[in-house]
Amino acid sequence: MADSGRYSVLFEPVKIGPVTARNRFYQVPHCCGLGHLRPRAHAAMRAMKAEGGWAVVSTEEAELHPSSDLSPYPEQRIWDDHDIPALRLMTDAVHDNGSLAAIELVHNGNHSANLMSRAPVLAPSDMTVDLIYPKQARAMDKTDIRAFRQWHRDAALRAKKAGFDIVYVYAGHRMTLAHHFLLKEYNDRTDEYGGSLENRARLMRELLEDTREAIGDQCAVALRLAVDEMMGPSGMQASAEGREVVEMLAELPDLWDVNVSDWSNDSATTRFQPEDGYQTAYIDFVKKLTSKPVVAVGRLNSPDMMASMVRNGVVDFIGAARPSIADPFLPAKIRDDRIEEIRECIGCNICVSCDSFGIPIRCTQNPTMGEEWRRNWHPEKVPAKGQEQDALVVGGGPAGLECAMQLARRGYEVTLAEAAGQLGGRVVKEASLPGLSAWKRVADHRTYDLSQRGNVQVFLDSKLDASQIAELGIRNVFVATGSSWRRDGVGRSSRAPLEFSDNASVFTPDDVMSGILPSGRVIIYDDDQAYLAGVIAEHLALLGSTVRFITPASKVSPWTEATLEQSRIQTSLLHKGVDILTHKQLRKISADSCEVACSFTGQTETHACDAVVLVTERARHTDLFDQLRDQGTDQFKPATLELIGDAAMPGLIADAVYSGHMAARDFERDPAEIAAAVFRRELTALSGT
Amino acid sequence: MADSGRYSVLFEPVKIGPVTARNRFYQVPHCCGLGHLRPRAHAAMRAMKAEGGWAVVSTEEAELHPSSDLSPYPEQRIWDDHDIPALRLMTDAVHDNGSLAAIELVHNGNHSANLMSRAPVLAPSDMTVDLIYPKQARAMDKTDIRAFRQWHRDAALRAKKAGFDIVYVYAGHRMTLAHHFLLKEYNDRTDEYGGSLENRARLMRELLEDTREAIGDQCAVALRLAVDEMMGPSGMQASAEGREVVEMLAELPDLWDVNVSDWSNDSATTRFQPEDGYQTAYIDFVKKLTSKPVVAVGRLNSPDMMASMVRNGVVDFIGAARPSIADPFLPAKIRDDRIEEIRECIGCNICVSCDSFGIPIRCTQNPTMGEEWRRNWHPEKVPAKGQEQDALVVGGGPAGLECAMQLARRGYEVTLAEAAGQLGGRVVKEASLPGLSAWKRVADHRTYDLSQRGNVQVFLDSKLDASQIAELGIRNVFVATGSSWRRDGVGRSSRAPLEFSDNASVFTPDDVMSGILPSGRVIIYDDDQAYLAGVIAEHLALLGSTVRFITPASKVSPWTEATLEQSRIQTSLLHKGVDILTHKQLRKISADSCEVACSFTGQTETHACDAVVLVTERARHTDLFDQLRDQGTDQFKPATLELIGDAAMPGLIADAVYSGHMAARDFERDPAEIAAAVFRRELTALSGT
Repeated sequence: MADSGRYSVLFEPVKIGPVTARNRFYQVPHCCGLGHLRPRAHAAMRAMKAEGGWAVVSTEEAELHPSSDLSPYPEQRIWDDHDIPALRLMTDAVHDNGSLAAIELVHNGNHSANLMSRAPVLAPSDMTVDLIYPKQARAMDKTDIRAFRQWHRDAALRAKKAGFDIVYVYAGHRMTLAHHFLLKEYNDRTDEYGGSLENRARLMRELLEDTREAIGDQCAVALRLAVDEMMGPSGMQASAEGREVVEMLAELPDLWDVNVSDWSNDSATTRFQPEDGYQTAYIDFVKKLTSKPVVAVGRLNSPDMMASMVRNGVVDFIGAARPSIADPFLPAKIRDDRIEEIRECIGCNICVSCDSFGIPIRCTQNPTMGEEWRRNWHPEKVPAKGQEQDALVVGGGPAGLECAMQLARRGYEVTLAEAAGQLGGRVVKEASLPGLSAWKRVADHRTYDLSQRGNVQVFLDSKLDASQIAELGIRNVFVATGSSWRRDGVGRSSRAPLEFSDNASVFTPDDVMSGILPSGRVIIYDDDQAYLAGVIAEHLALLGSTVRFITPASKVSPWTEATLEQSRIQTSLLHKGVDILTHKQLRKISADSCEVACSFTGQTETHACDAVVLVTERARHTDLFDQLRDQGTDQFKPATLELIGDAAMPGLIADAVYSGHMAARDFERDPAEIAAAVFRRELTALSGT
Repeated sequence: MADSGRYSVLFEPVKIGPVTARNRFYQVPHCCGLGHLRPRAHAAMRAMKAEGGWAVVSTEEAELHPSSDLSPYPEQRIWDDHDIPALRLMTDAVHDNGSLAAIELVHNGNHSANLMSRAPVLAPSDMTVDLIYPKQARAMDKTDIRAFRQWHRDAALRAKKAGFDIVYVYAGHRMTLAHHFLLKEYNDRTDEYGGSLENRARLMRELLEDTREAIGDQCAVALRLAVDEMMGPSGMQASAEGREVVEMLAELPDLWDVNVSDWSNDSATTRFQPEDGYQTAYIDFVKKLTSKPVVAVGRLNSPDMMASMVRNGVVDFIGAARPSIADPFLPAKIRDDRIEEIRECIGCNICVSCDSFGIPIRCTQNPTMGEEWRRNWHPEKVPAKGQEQDALVVGGGPAGLECAMQLARRGYEVTLAEAAGQLGGRVVKEASLPGLSAWKRVADHRTYDLSQRGNVQVFLDSKLDASQIAELGIRNVFVATGSSWRRDGVGRSSRAPLEFSDNASVFTPDDVMSGILPSGRVIIYDDDQAYLAGVIAEHLALLGSTVRFITPASKVSPWTEATLEQSRIQTSLLHKGVDILTHKQLRKISADSCEVACSFTGQTETHACDAVVLVTERARHTDLFDQLRDQGTDQFKPATLELIGDAAMPGLIADAVYSGHMAARDFERDPAEIAAAVFRRELTALSGT
């Protein structure tokens, strides 16, 4: 215990209304794609945060009524008493680990389209739903408002019954009714709920009062408020109405949880907001206006920053969503003086993307995230080794690094051979591109960990072939040889290679990331449609190329909608003069031009260019694996031979880390157990309700 | 019973391998957004088809292994024995109604991204997943193929255990592994599973043989095959390989379920494929090549067409997905000589859109679809009336028509007052636009039904105000006064009205649909982003206007991705010379131009035009309702006053019909029961697996 040291301030207990948090680490509400569909997985994930030292652990938003139905997205749900047993799983698990459980009650107003419940959509004023769907919300009349207050109050009572210690009123992210009433843009009412700030804040005040009245004797009432929308005068600003609201309600909640809006600002990626602690300047006024504890976020990874924020009176609690996902044991590691072991959030928003896709949360840095129940994975504990003594990992990219690290933690003698002169593989390559430098933390964390262990040997500049592996004689081989980008244009839009003239100047992302650069007028063809082509366009534009971005998609990097980055990416490219052509498929590439066809009509057009960068699909590197698998019995055959990472299935860096992690865990495990884990999931009950 | 009549051929029993269907009505597999997440709702929906006379009722696709995981989309699942109890609910319910239950086993190959299971994605060849996600499938090796065959076989055994009578091998829609192996585009293998058609069909043949061997003694083995991809020589054609495959496997399955691919062709909307029976020309060769029964689809609504297809030896079974959704009692109505009562499918694909959104199925024509369990709604039965005698419905659009019809069926004396000269409201307006004429069936069905009843009085050209209603003195009033399109530009992208010059020439969709047409250079501004603006653009282009389509969206009518129409719409507009500008927000409108701003950078540009059609948002017509609600106690106050349809919540026509239906059902119902129904849903089990 290092409580008495420089971070001891972080481990002071803090009172929140009628309850007390054992330290200052506070996992604020965050979505996770588990919610009401996967209650056991949800409880296990939240419990892991508590075990790791977070004194407060909150749910994601919990729909309080069928008229706030986010289906098909699985958030939390507290519509009626039927939801209590599922929520109780979480509160019990969090309490068992000594922490407080919080619930973020929500009515999403027009942000919920009620596609399952088909209930009327509610809003302060008539307006369309916040989803591309032809459906509109109706302005709530007084009866609606009274009903809503009753639902909120009933939900608070249910929350108490389910064992929650802290109950939220939520006015943030432009996603909730309380927030919509507050914002001029949504509220054109002429009654006592519209007009002046006092009127627009009335509903929020009433919810706070109602909640306190209903459960305030035993539960703390928290207010989550976005104090700035980062849109200047066209939105709420911390310097104006944001401040006034806090002044107005200063002592009403037991806790202020303050942030910026919208979600893309609150959960900004490192690509567009590289500074950890970026919200501080917006929220630091709050604590001066209230005697109640304040929690704030902003990708707070650094213990020094945390301690200084508390000491300087900026916050009482260190709030975290993403850093608590990357490392549920962040508080424990600070407490135990194991700072170097913290897996820092890289700010890639893969966690956010899971909510966008309605699937269980995952994390690039923490492969156990979301797998606490399904696979029974603990981020800090791996089973001890079995009968085997040693293992060879070929390839030091994200899969190989993670695999080697976990094998070493299990106690094996690990040899890691990397063909390049440094560890990290695609991670260090991609991290060299504009905005992605924080991604290097994926390699740094693992490289450092491996360097601290006595049972690991790392060989750089060591491209191994089958005969060299035979010479090494290590029985257990994990092949993490990665993939490279195809040079023939095969991808989503064409399963056949494109037509090239002999002198066409064609590049791949691997070329660009290795410093082999096109020049002059460059066409970037994005048939991958994820993130990389957009980053490469940015990179080449910054280097002075004239860049034209051509894609069969309808926008640049459409997948990044899920990481809340798409609009920023396209805006940035346009500001850099990149010419963007959508709905176009590349057909032919010659030395000085490309022929492209309209995705709809097939009509072709020709664009002059000096070079083309093809970002289409990846080819797996399986030669070594194939050799080892297929060679005759007279030759060396590994006892264990496993292909992992991009060599097995090109995907996200998160997928590669996950693959390496799983391979290490499953090594020498009962095959029946491994097989069974694949099928584990939560099923719908066939009775009840 | 009219079995002996002109349709008697449709009611002959037909043997399918070891089982016998009681008639020729066959509900082919179709998705429904219920699946493994909502097993009780699923069973009740399928049971309704059986009750309505469909002799075979099938599931949607049923994932047979975690490596075919379509999460978050809730299809059916038969991963292991844990899934059997949920499936048993359906087979029992279907059997109880005298029908056979079929299950469509599926492995989706690269069409499933396995976002929940995180299992490797499988395909004949290395390729990206069929989803905008950076993840690739790996080419299956022989071990993979052996494993897959075993999974399929095991799933067939589980299907038998769950009580299914017919088990599918599924090679269609470009969505399944068996289909991917068959298609050259997906399969570049050089082993015995690639190259020749015989090789590419090998896997499908093996699956058929495996399935027969496993369960063929008691269950029929069906093959669902897409015989034509409607892409000419670049895809499979009924005149070439499609035919050859049928020849090759002619007697192997017990039943041929043949269709066209991809899904957008198989489930073509009336907008792009107005002819019912449009698949016949592609599949009519099949029956000539096999002695086994054949089922085919193609929006078969007409009993005469059905009977002639059977008599002419085109098919043995009348297959249906959408017509069975629009009217689960279609077979019973033919049998009972109640042809006029059939609710014909309008081919709008709202049903399909539910699968796209991952939400429970609904139908424009049949508001009870998907609500059989949750609300206990039967499409043909409504509760008898209560104490009240009469009801007034104001407004004869889709909500008013449905409400009036159901109230009349319940036995009330119904007065329906419509302001216009004909019934149908927005339905007849929209149906006047190009491609949407089939939508008129929504009004026709209800208008006809009302005309057949003695307890209904319809008044046209009767716009009522509160005093007139007072004079009528009817105690129970349902207000279905609809909505109109806003003329101020308020919508998704701007909550404030746009800037207009005095002489700006501005039109709304209501103007256009009423024949008040812009001329010259017309800008259509689509901030609704659903379907209507695209139809209006088509309409005006056909009328000779020079049309520029401007939208903040990234494509024309993005919502229609969900109805499988988007690409067809944009292609059609481009072919008609419509100029499409995406990612642009309208700012100012003057007499001869519009100023638009880039959605990303805000950079403005000006476009010359003579007129602008604003398709942004709708304003509800609530004046009458407000008057009746708010007037003093000395005046007439209805005992029941309810706002329904677009006047309550502008949405789809399907939403309006639903709203009218619900109001009629809930009239005089116990309020506690009404309230409870809102909360009904299926919950996740907290134990098991």
